[in-house]
Amino acid sequence: MTETKEEKIYDKKISRRQMLKMTGLGAAGVAIGATGFGGVIKTFGMDFFDDDSTTTNKVNFYGQHQSGIATDVQTNIYFASLNVLVTSKQELQELFKMWTPLAVRLMNGDMIGDPTTNGMMPPKDTGEVKGLDAANLSITFGVGPSLFEKKEFGLASKKPNELKDLPHFPKDQLDAAYTGGDICIQACADDPQVAFHAVRNLVRAASGKVSLKWSQAGFNAFPVSKGKKQTPRNLFAFKDGTENPTTSNKKDMNDVVWVQSGESKGWMTGGSYLVARRIQLHLETWDRTSLKEQENTFGRHRDSGAPIGKKDEFEAMDIDRKDDNGNYVVPETSHVFLAKSVDARILRRSYSYSSGVMDATGSYDAGLLFVSFQKNPDQFIKIQNSLGRLDKMNEYITHRGSALFACFPGIQKGSYIGEALFKTL
Amino acid sequence: MTETKEEKIYDKKISRRQMLKMTGLGAAGVAIGATGFGGVIKTFGMDFFDDDSTTTNKVNFYGQHQSGIATDVQTNIYFASLNVLVTSKQELQELFKMWTPLAVRLMNGDMIGDPTTNGMMPPKDTGEVKGLDAANLSITFGVGPSLFEKKEFGLASKKPNELKDLPHFPKDQLDAAYTGGDICIQACADDPQVAFHAVRNLVRAASGKVSLKWSQAGFNAFPVSKGKKQTPRNLFAFKDGTENPTTSNKKDMNDVVWVQSGESKGWMTGGSYLVARRIQLHLETWDRTSLKEQENTFGRHRDSGAPIGKKDEFEAMDIDRKDDNGNYVVPETSHVFLAKSVDARILRRSYSYSSGVMDATGSYDAGLLFVSFQKNPDQFIKIQNSLGRLDKMNEYITHRGSALFACFPGIQKGSYIGEALFKTL
Repeated sequence: MTETKEEKIYDKKISRRQMLKMTGLGAAGVAIGATGFGGVIKTFGMDFFDDDSTTTNKVNFYGQHQSGIATDVQTNIYFASLNVLVTSKQELQELFKMWTPLAVRLMNGDMIGDPTTNGMMPPKDTGEVKGLDAANLSITFGVGPSLFEKKEFGLASKKPNELKDLPHFPKDQLDAAYTGGDICIQACADDPQVAFHAVRNLVRAASGKVSLKWSQAGFNAFPVSKGKKQTPRNLFAFKDGTENPTTSNKKDMNDVVWVQSGESKGWMTGGSYLVARRIQLHLETWDRTSLKEQENTFGRHRDSGAPIGKKDEFEAMDIDRKDDNGNYVVPETSHVFLAKSVDARILRRSYSYSSGVMDATGSYDAGLLFVSFQKNPDQFIKIQNSLGRLDKMNEYITHRGSALFACFPGIQKGSYIGEALFKTL
Repeated sequence: MTETKEEKIYDKKISRRQMLKMTGLGAAGVAIGATGFGGVIKTFGMDFFDDDSTTTNKVNFYGQHQSGIATDVQTNIYFASLNVLVTSKQELQELFKMWTPLAVRLMNGDMIGDPTTNGMMPPKDTGEVKGLDAANLSITFGVGPSLFEKKEFGLASKKPNELKDLPHFPKDQLDAAYTGGDICIQACADDPQVAFHAVRNLVRAASGKVSLKWSQAGFNAFPVSKGKKQTPRNLFAFKDGTENPTTSNKKDMNDVVWVQSGESKGWMTGGSYLVARRIQLHLETWDRTSLKEQENTFGRHRDSGAPIGKKDEFEAMDIDRKDDNGNYVVPETSHVFLAKSVDARILRRSYSYSSGVMDATGSYDAGLLFVSFQKNPDQFIKIQNSLGRLDKMNEYITHRGSALFACFPGIQKGSYIGEALFKTL
């Protein structure tokens, strides 16, 4: 289906909801052809939703870094881990080239193809987001260690040393059904249907080239205070993400999250490593535990999120503090104490999940889709090793899934996702 | 933990977010005792959030009918089916009595217990909704056929004839892991964490008395036009719920949804029957199908939601319409044609789900948690039988789970959930 020039204008400039508003169609549906919208645009003389525009509900695709990392955390995630089915480097490259304009359109809140199909073919877009806006959709692409081990791609020399399966950690009970993958697509949005739609349409457009290995939907609930989103609580009711680097602080982000030149393979400069862990939270056990014990497990107060003995969530976490008897105020076996005992920081960007009931036990299949970004997976590994067997949290959680992906740097206009991997040494 | 009088005032009148706003604590957390809030209330002389108040984000618990049926459909559901573990009628009665004030508090956006626990006991409320508002939470309780078959309850004579396992329908592939249950709790809210929290806290408060049999989270995405929510689209991108009775139309609801006096056992007067079906949508197959075929499968146009050949979603569906050649305009094997061929209506109140990947196939474990309410399950059965083997939709869906529950009438102040079941003949 070739597009007319006017259709192209439509495709680029108008979001799904804007379109409805402009024409006053709304519930009556979009029965008017794309050409008609071209006319509307000209009449109004407006230039809606350029890729660079920053409306309140649109995240930019292009930039120095990929979206979905420094992007403000959204309410929903649909995380997909894919197997690659193509068998040549060129086909792999074509896959990412093909995905690039689709990701732009999805993040702009546009349909990925002509909405005025004649009906004789499957619709280009699966359509379940019709009438919805972009909902701050971000899409983050990464590649796993297994991709580089496939000889047919000839990418072995491009594999960063640090891109390898995470080591086995104490108490890991990993399920192959939630572990690994050649490619990840992390879609986050303020609407679960928008996030799901993004993955569905990208995977569909790559039919026969990739298959779904595993996926997980998740959510965050943000308390709002004075019009500002607060740190969300996980299903243990503790705030998650308080210690995060400030995403607007360039130095912080360069220190912790973004791979700097020379720190990894060249193609990863400006990129980041994504750790995904599907962590079951044993809610029933937790809920039988006293608040004091819960707080000693985290090393923070539940309600305020403050370090133990402090009042405010954002007060410095000084783990060396001792009470009058010489005992550590923040217990030495608490999650925070152990995590802060090593010189390593990460950017947490996690989501809760509630996926029904565990067959065998009747307990909740619920927990945390832990996602963190770091310039080197060793940052995560250091922290996880420090938690080791000591972490009081181990009594209440089980890691069920695990994956590591190298997320490409940002994409410039005219370029495509992962170009540096295929082009640079 | 006995509550002081002031704590009771606090408990009743102040929502979680209101509390934060009033004290200006917000992110700093709630470090102030309940007594302090009592004082604040008196100082302001206000009477916040009485059970009868209708704020924009609070649904009333009390009334002629239970919430979550005629209530405007929310964005999220957490549906739980429970096994009953208690062994006497009195214990069962106590269970519903115990749940009643908890449900009131949850729907008011309150914690279910004192938030100022001294720390030596497990918190009464699991706490993950701290700082969130009521998010239009509705909670709907129902009882399944299996409850009446347990001799120890002595309820056999109270069992309505129509409360029995749904018959096997063509193409059913039911999984015991998503089928049946003694009691259901349907929690719907405009926040997934609020819906999950409601079920979690009700089940937890009944620890040892019930266990989780199965559960399913789901979502709806509402296009908004002129400030009004539109009919949401399912994952096939078709609008779901267009033909619903108007919930504000008393006659419509009495005809279709609410059991009238004499129509069932006395305790069900004012109640309704809930059918839940976990329906996998085979997205991959659907997405390979032409738009025309998709529309012929539903009997409606995808974008507008209008009956085939019509323009507007809400135009009457006249299945007898024929074209100039004498052929039916709405195909005879379409979902809508068959559903409308029988004289039966239901109130659909469904949610989409995306629960990862089917282990065996790598296809999406995604679809529709179909929920419908009707005054008699035969309304649903009639329609489902009419769809039978003819429905074109059968190529694209598989029913994986099924349950039927008798949802009690509404609760009056001073009464409790299900009282009529235990009291009337």
